[in-house]
Amino acid sequence: MTQRSPIWRQISDTLRGEIAQGLYPAASKLPTEAQLSARFGVNRHTVRHALGALAEEGLVVSRRGAGVFVAAAPQAEYPIGRRVRFQQNIIASGRTPSREISRIETRPARADEAEALALAPGSMVHVYEGISLGDGLPLAQFRSVFPAARFPDLAQALGRLTSVTAALREQGLGDYIRASTRVTACLATGTRAGQMKLPEGAPLLRTEAVNVDPDGAPVEFGISWFAGDRVALSMTPEQGGAD
Amino acid sequence: MTQRSPIWRQISDTLRGEIAQGLYPAASKLPTEAQLSARFGVNRHTVRHALGALAEEGLVVSRRGAGVFVAAAPQAEYPIGRRVRFQQNIIASGRTPSREISRIETRPARADEAEALALAPGSMVHVYEGISLGDGLPLAQFRSVFPAARFPDLAQALGRLTSVTAALREQGLGDYIRASTRVTACLATGTRAGQMKLPEGAPLLRTEAVNVDPDGAPVEFGISWFAGDRVALSMTPEQGGAD
Repeated sequence: MTQRSPIWRQISDTLRGEIAQGLYPAASKLPTEAQLSARFGVNRHTVRHALGALAEEGLVVSRRGAGVFVAAAPQAEYPIGRRVRFQQNIIASGRTPSREISRIETRPARADEAEALALAPGSMVHVYEGISLGDGLPLAQFRSVFPAARFPDLAQALGRLTSVTAALREQGLGDYIRASTRVTACLATGTRAGQMKLPEGAPLLRTEAVNVDPDGAPVEFGISWFAGDRVALSMTPEQGGAD
Repeated sequence: MTQRSPIWRQISDTLRGEIAQGLYPAASKLPTEAQLSARFGVNRHTVRHALGALAEEGLVVSRRGAGVFVAAAPQAEYPIGRRVRFQQNIIASGRTPSREISRIETRPARADEAEALALAPGSMVHVYEGISLGDGLPLAQFRSVFPAARFPDLAQALGRLTSVTAALREQGLGDYIRASTRVTACLATGTRAGQMKLPEGAPLLRTEAVNVDPDGAPVEFGISWFAGDRVALSMTPEQGGAD
């Protein structure tokens, strides 16, 4: 290609190369707009255009009032398919998974929980809350809700075992699959921001998911809040369908 | 259930009912924490707990410094499956779709675009940018990129026709399916916030998607930014798979 790139693109290409070479490591702060303007001999508008292109690619993140940072990349790829297993997903992304449990309780279901689990209003549910980490960095806060009548000893098993899959298996459920996932975006606030080690106002991916047993009966309703600049949800339609 | 609910839950139930009855319409501001404290005769901590529960259900949205607002709900459900067609999705959510085109151009591919479309670096692509609206409200900003060598007259067709599907059909592509979708969360800034009629710092769902022809060759690479409190992406695993 003989066509000459616009100046902003030459600047974004240069910065992209320097990030790739590790000159600016993950989560480090880039020079200010004024410093970059001086370095490249262009006005701030051009610098902003170049940084905007890198932000669109997900390479840098702008934090209001604080500056532009290299993304804590690469984001952990978190596949949403028929079988969603948090710890396996984290391992597949090359990270070491861990979990901090903040609450295990048995209480009456909230209206939305009862509806998702096809329970009568006020039915008892086990609630399992905590933080999922990859290499020690919080990736998601989760709350999973299970029907207590079906799994009477699950709360105790969740406290003793390290995975939901193992606890459900002990309660007699050999397999379960993801029936639906709904994704929205929201902002980190208050306690959640603190627990996830994120600034207030950081973007979160919020998922609501229902897992069902092989007969289609709901066994788990889960809400997770993923750190938007640490996790990417990926969806690949199932292969071999009759579609 | 004979068990008595905690006070914060009684308050959130009351407010949920009042929102459902239309006492506080979509996008309206709720009374302040001080006003709610006085009304219910509880301290602010309890009010905050009740509002937090409603926020987690997606019924209200807290905007820093401005207060708590009823969500511009219900969010448009946007299914991500094998066939993702924007306008059909919007119609299915009960809204009237429209589109504002901001740019159609033919230019060399960016590095990430060439990679996604399996093109040699610098190959020419058609770029189609704009805003998708439902009932006149911006739901997403999009940028779709197509290989120019394969679809020489597509830019012209996109300017003339109202849908990508129709323009591709005119260029000889009868069908295409979604090969992959990657979802992250980010914040609305600058021009994008303005075009989408969102405040700076509002949460966005960012999707990167590749559509392929029936032989698996990439035909479209698209990036979309969805307004987080106006759209929910939903994923239901395909039925009838051999999994």
